[in-house]
Amino acid sequence: MSNLQLEDYIVATYLVHGRGGDFHKKAQGIAVGLTVGSWTDLPAERQERMKKHLGHVVSVQELGSDEQGTVKALLKIAYPTINFTPDLPAVLTSVFGKLSMDGAIKLIDLDFPAEFTKNFPGPKFGIEGVRNRLGVQNRPLLMSIFKSCIGYDTDTLAELFYQQALGGVDLVKDDEIFFDDTYAPFEKRIEACLKAADRASAETGKKVLYAANLTAPVTEIVDKAKRAVQAGANALLLNVLAYGYDVLHRLAADPEVNVPIMAHPALAGALYPSPQYGISAPVVLGKLMRLAGADLVLYPSPYGSVAMERAETLAIAEELRKPKEVLKPAFPVPSAGIHPGLVPQLYNDLGNDQVINAGGGIHGHPGGSAAGGRAFVAAIDAVIQGRTLEDAAKDSAELAKALELWGGK
Amino acid sequence: MSNLQLEDYIVATYLVHGRGGDFHKKAQGIAVGLTVGSWTDLPAERQERMKKHLGHVVSVQELGSDEQGTVKALLKIAYPTINFTPDLPAVLTSVFGKLSMDGAIKLIDLDFPAEFTKNFPGPKFGIEGVRNRLGVQNRPLLMSIFKSCIGYDTDTLAELFYQQALGGVDLVKDDEIFFDDTYAPFEKRIEACLKAADRASAETGKKVLYAANLTAPVTEIVDKAKRAVQAGANALLLNVLAYGYDVLHRLAADPEVNVPIMAHPALAGALYPSPQYGISAPVVLGKLMRLAGADLVLYPSPYGSVAMERAETLAIAEELRKPKEVLKPAFPVPSAGIHPGLVPQLYNDLGNDQVINAGGGIHGHPGGSAAGGRAFVAAIDAVIQGRTLEDAAKDSAELAKALELWGGK
Ligand SMILES: [Mg+2]
Ligand SMILES: [Mg+2]
Repeated sequence: MSNLQLEDYIVATYLVHGRGGDFHKKAQGIAVGLTVGSWTDLPAERQERMKKHLGHVVSVQELGSDEQGTVKALLKIAYPTINFTPDLPAVLTSVFGKLSMDGAIKLIDLDFPAEFTKNFPGPKFGIEGVRNRLGVQNRPLLMSIFKSCIGYDTDTLAELFYQQALGGVDLVKDDEIFFDDTYAPFEKRIEACLKAADRASAETGKKVLYAANLTAPVTEIVDKAKRAVQAGANALLLNVLAYGYDVLHRLAADPEVNVPIMAHPALAGALYPSPQYGISAPVVLGKLMRLAGADLVLYPSPYGSVAMERAETLAIAEELRKPKEVLKPAFPVPSAGIHPGLVPQLYNDLGNDQVINAGGGIHGHPGGSAAGGRAFVAAIDAVIQGRTLEDAAKDSAELAKALELWGGK
Repeated sequence: MSNLQLEDYIVATYLVHGRGGDFHKKAQGIAVGLTVGSWTDLPAERQERMKKHLGHVVSVQELGSDEQGTVKALLKIAYPTINFTPDLPAVLTSVFGKLSMDGAIKLIDLDFPAEFTKNFPGPKFGIEGVRNRLGVQNRPLLMSIFKSCIGYDTDTLAELFYQQALGGVDLVKDDEIFFDDTYAPFEKRIEACLKAADRASAETGKKVLYAANLTAPVTEIVDKAKRAVQAGANALLLNVLAYGYDVLHRLAADPEVNVPIMAHPALAGALYPSPQYGISAPVVLGKLMRLAGADLVLYPSPYGSVAMERAETLAIAEELRKPKEVLKPAFPVPSAGIHPGLVPQLYNDLGNDQVINAGGGIHGHPGGSAAGGRAFVAAIDAVIQGRTLEDAAKDSAELAKALELWGGK
């Protein structure tokens, strides 16, 4: 491993559980088995030609054992990028396809060299691009989620949109479980909601992006996205894991889909929560979403109804935002159960470059959705001015009401 | 729930871990939250219109508690099919999108009504169609996997194909980690391997299907499949979970992709092994693969190198093969670490309608790949004639050699 040029390799880190001692053998088996298949029985001339395709063990680190004698270890394996086409189906199939079924093993990190990363779209807009579209620079953005979409017609949705936009939010997103276009056809819905956005804008002076839920057969989804953009769409929501990362990749790579793409984390919980199996949350919701081209990524906040460990949520945000040679940073959107009283904690964790995202914490406000939005706007204003919410509530009846109902100060 | 017409609902079964007593509340929260969003606070006239979109709790069954007081329970929730478009991204996002992130919960079954199932392609060929293409009726099929594909040119792959076909196998599949077309472009490889198949056929009298690994950007993959078929491809391999079930669906639904599709289980282990999280193997590798249109499905055998519990493997095969009103049965392909000595156990488990699939158990034969294939042919002949392998080995030097090396009788 000493002379390995890591810029030609993807390095995967695995957490394995097993008996101690045989981890080196296991690691060697992975490095060879998932690349050239076999090595020692190849003739020397063949070895020479296959060398550039051979995987390598970077390190094996034992992490101690439990009472039952089960030892944990971290294995780092380097896979030649020359073995893959530059897309996530190829990468994931290679580094965790068969291996995912081979006992207690979790994929916890993937390092992509810059040369290989260049083949991926990454966020088309990123944090800066989304801010520029909104004309909002030095504060967290605010997003509202439709409380429910199923069964509503276009006019009703447009009115619900108007109420949300009136509260001063920067973005509104569809419910991710909104598929059926019977009552509210996709393009018609986009046109109606953006008209509602203009109507609200005339009162608030604020621009609003509407992330309509993009759903279609994979064979038609890029064309549907283009039609949405032609109909005026200024953002799109995608259930990335339900469709596959490559759908996000192709949307992000298409110059005609020139609007920010918001990734919903639906199904991610089928992958990341087990300590022994699956793929870690920072990879599933952080690194791979950014690589494939998400401009904004929703994930469970540590404070709300769908909880995730705080350290893990920070690791997701880190993957989305850390400076990279070739990828723009993406907006972290900690979600689920967010109310105005949580804004100081969210701000303390992530600062300005995040989207504060609420559904029930906006619609459940006693004054309605617009009042709910205004309570959040007041809370965000407070934290960037260094005021406590308690203090700011003196100037905002909506915020005072929200704190009374949900707590926080 | 008493008057629910279950033909209008998909019923999802979840295994949850939690404190006892509040499971009914949790179930009710799922049924409402993942359909209409809220119910009790809707005006009566709105409730009337939303009734057909509302989810329902079918049953809550507590399964007892462990020493720490954690209770397991099975929740069955009915979701109106009217809420979805008929595709797996919609269904999975709805029934396990947000919910997958909501604590210790595993999706263990999904029941689709026949009316809704009709919208899915299902296997285009199924067991009968694959058998007819091969002209083989009353025995398990035999498949060989290329030992390795990466880095080999078309001529070398064709020669390796010939050796495999010469052993009397019915199918040959590419390695699933074979993506890069530099040395062996997809259509050229198909043409060369099928020429090798004809060459072998002239000697063995047997037809061979070649499942070439179909890989491409999702925006191009259906067209690439069509080009492969035009180039003569008689089967295709797909890493279904890496691309998403909808890619399989669209391939199976396309009348021009008129060849059997073989589903590889790569990445499935990121979803099914945890007892608390994820989606069960019979759903991931059985029910959903068949619904989306796989004609043959690989999964870990209970006897080989990548082991799965025997009961779970039988449940996968059951999902693939059980008689259904609207879907053809698909071939189960228990895989990984299979050698001729395991044929009696596989036959005892699944009988004729399976594919015996081997890589190392064919190529590792001391006489080479062709001899390895012949050892399997002899083992399969033996079990359908009710002979022991030990007895059959008297008539097959190749089988005798295999049993000596790997065991079995
Ligand atoms: Mg929702
Ligand atoms: Mg292989």
